[in-house]
Amino acid sequence: MTPRILICEQIIWAHDDVKNLFGDIADIIYMDSPTRSEFLKECSPGGKYFDIVGIYRENGSSDKIGVFDRELINGLPPSVKWIAHNGAGYDPVDVHACIARGIYLSNTPGAVDDATATTALYLLISTLRQYSIAERSLRALRWKPSGLSTKTHDLTGRTVAILGLGGIGLRFAELIQPFPMRVIYHSRRKVIDAPAYCEYFENVEEMLAQADVLSIHVPLRAETVGLVGEKMIRALKPGAIIINTARGRVIDEDAMIKALEDGHLSSVGLDVFPNEPEVNPRLLEFPQITLLPHMGTENQDSQRKMEVRALINLRDYLVDGMGRDLVIEFKNGQKRDASL
Amino acid sequence: MTPRILICEQIIWAHDDVKNLFGDIADIIYMDSPTRSEFLKECSPGGKYFDIVGIYRENGSSDKIGVFDRELINGLPPSVKWIAHNGAGYDPVDVHACIARGIYLSNTPGAVDDATATTALYLLISTLRQYSIAERSLRALRWKPSGLSTKTHDLTGRTVAILGLGGIGLRFAELIQPFPMRVIYHSRRKVIDAPAYCEYFENVEEMLAQADVLSIHVPLRAETVGLVGEKMIRALKPGAIIINTARGRVIDEDAMIKALEDGHLSSVGLDVFPNEPEVNPRLLEFPQITLLPHMGTENQDSQRKMEVRALINLRDYLVDGMGRDLVIEFKNGQKRDASL
Repeated sequence: MTPRILICEQIIWAHDDVKNLFGDIADIIYMDSPTRSEFLKECSPGGKYFDIVGIYRENGSSDKIGVFDRELINGLPPSVKWIAHNGAGYDPVDVHACIARGIYLSNTPGAVDDATATTALYLLISTLRQYSIAERSLRALRWKPSGLSTKTHDLTGRTVAILGLGGIGLRFAELIQPFPMRVIYHSRRKVIDAPAYCEYFENVEEMLAQADVLSIHVPLRAETVGLVGEKMIRALKPGAIIINTARGRVIDEDAMIKALEDGHLSSVGLDVFPNEPEVNPRLLEFPQITLLPHMGTENQDSQRKMEVRALINLRDYLVDGMGRDLVIEFKNGQKRDASL
Repeated sequence: MTPRILICEQIIWAHDDVKNLFGDIADIIYMDSPTRSEFLKECSPGGKYFDIVGIYRENGSSDKIGVFDRELINGLPPSVKWIAHNGAGYDPVDVHACIARGIYLSNTPGAVDDATATTALYLLISTLRQYSIAERSLRALRWKPSGLSTKTHDLTGRTVAILGLGGIGLRFAELIQPFPMRVIYHSRRKVIDAPAYCEYFENVEEMLAQADVLSIHVPLRAETVGLVGEKMIRALKPGAIIINTARGRVIDEDAMIKALEDGHLSSVGLDVFPNEPEVNPRLLEFPQITLLPHMGTENQDSQRKMEVRALINLRDYLVDGMGRDLVIEFKNGQKRDASL
C-alpha cells in the first residue's frame, strides 16, 4: 500500500514540489479538521487520518488544532513515524512526547538562516541609528527629531555579541562582517568551524561587558526561558542594545523593560514576543525601540525554501528511512541544547 | 599676522580637533550673525569677518544666513580663499560663483560613505521585506499585515543597479556583497578600480531592465535634476524598487508617484526629498514605502569624522596651500560630473 502523508497546513509556495517529491511514492491528504477534537477523532481507528505515516506541519496550523503538545501527539495514529516541522524553532512540538512515542521530528534549520539574519541586521541598523523613531517623526510631518545624532552610532567598529552561534548567528556574523563590526560570541562550546573573526567567550558575562549590542540566537527550550534576565542584562555595558529574532520568552521581559526605563539599555530591536500575537503595551511607551511582528522569515523566497526543506525530510524518510534535519534531541539521545 | 578662519556653524563633536588643528596656525572666529544682511555687513570693510581667509560651513548654517549662493559668495571679503564644506553633496554652495571669485571649495567625500551606504542598506531591507508597514501594523496593535510574504523577497540573489559608482555607491556594493546580491552599475565611465563583482553597463536602460532595485548615488547638479524620470523608471522591470539616499531632486517625483500608483514600482525607500524639510503628502498615501528624514550621515561617529575632514581641508590649505578634497569642478577646470 502506498504510504499516506498528512499536510497539516496549507502549502503556499511549493505546490509543484509536492507533486515532484511525492508523486510516485506517497498519497497526500490535506488536513481539513476545524477543531482539535475533530482532528483527534479522525486519527482514531476508522478515521481518515488513521493510517498516515508522516505529517507536515507549521505554526499556522495551530489556529485550528493547536500546538503539537503531548495530548495531540499521543492522539496520533500508531502508524505515524515522522513529523516534518516547517520552521527552525520547534518549540510548538513536544519533542519528548515524540521520543516517547517513537516519532521522529525534523525542522528546517538552514532554510531560515538568511532571512532571519537579515531581520537581525535590519534591527541592528534601526536601533543603532534610531530609524524607527525617525520615520515616525517624518510620517507625523515633523521631519527629523532633534538631537538624534547624539544618541546614534555607526555600525562600523562597534562590538556585537552573539548568544548562540548556530546557523542564524553565523549568517548574521557574515552579514555584519563587511562593516566591519567586532563579533564576539558565547555558545556552550566553541564552534570549531566558525570564521576566525568570531571570537569565543566561554564566560558569558565577560562577553557581555564588551558588547555594544547583544543579538540573541538560541532556541526556546526549558533552560533558555528567561535566560537573558536581570543578571545578563546588567552585565552589558550601560547604553547597550538587545536584538531578539529568536523567541520572546528567551528574554525576561520585565527585566528588559526595567533596564529600558532606567536607561541601562538604550534600545531594543524585537521581532519576537513572549505571547505572540500579543505585544506588551508597555513596550509602545519607548519611542526609541524597533518592533516587528515576527517577520523573521516572512517572504516568499525563504518560505518556499522552508516548505521544500520540510517536505524533503518527509520524502527522505519514506525513501531512505531518515531525513537529514532530525532535531538534536534524537541525535544526542538525550535533551541537549544545540546552539547555546 | 595669524590668519583668521570663520566657523559658520556650530562644531558639535570636534572641539578638541579645532584646537589641535589650528592652535598655532590660525585664529578662530565663530559666526554669530542672526541674518544674512548682518552677515554681509560684517564681511564688509571694518566688519569683524573682513579679513578671514577660510570658512567652515555646513547645511545647518542656512538657518541664519541662507545657502552659499552667488550673492553671499560675492559678498565675502576678498581675503577669503577656501570654503570647507562639511558634507558630500555641496549643492548648497554655488561652485561657479566660487570659481569666479577664486575661492577654493572642498567637501568631505570619504567621510560620508559608510553611514550613507548603511542608510541605503536599511532602505533596501525595509522595502524588499516591507518592514515599515509591518512595524506600523504592530504599533497599531494589529500584529502582522496579512499576505506580506506574497509581496516580499530575500535580498540574496536579487539584482541591485547602482546609478553612480562613487564612494557611497562602492561602499553600498561592499555592504550587500555577503548576501550576495548581483551588483550592476552605470557611471559615465567604467570605474577602473571597482571590485570584479560590480558589473558595468554603459547603457543605462539595459542596466535598468535587469534590476530588481535601483539605488541612486549621483550628486545633484544641473544635469542630474530629474535624471531618474519617466524614461528611466519605465525602463525598470515591473515591480522594481527605487532607493534614494542622494538628493531628492535627482528623481522626477511626479513620475515616481505615478509609477507607484499604477504599480510599476512596487516600493520606494527615500531618505531625501526635493524640498526638505517638506515632504510631499502624496507619498504618505503609499503604505508600502519607507521614508526617512535625511538620516544619511546622522550619527555622532560619522558627523565627527565629517567635521574633522572638513577642518583638515582648511588646515591643509593654510599649511600647504591645498586641501585634498577640492571639489571636482576645480580639478577638471570645468564643470564635470564626478560619479555619474
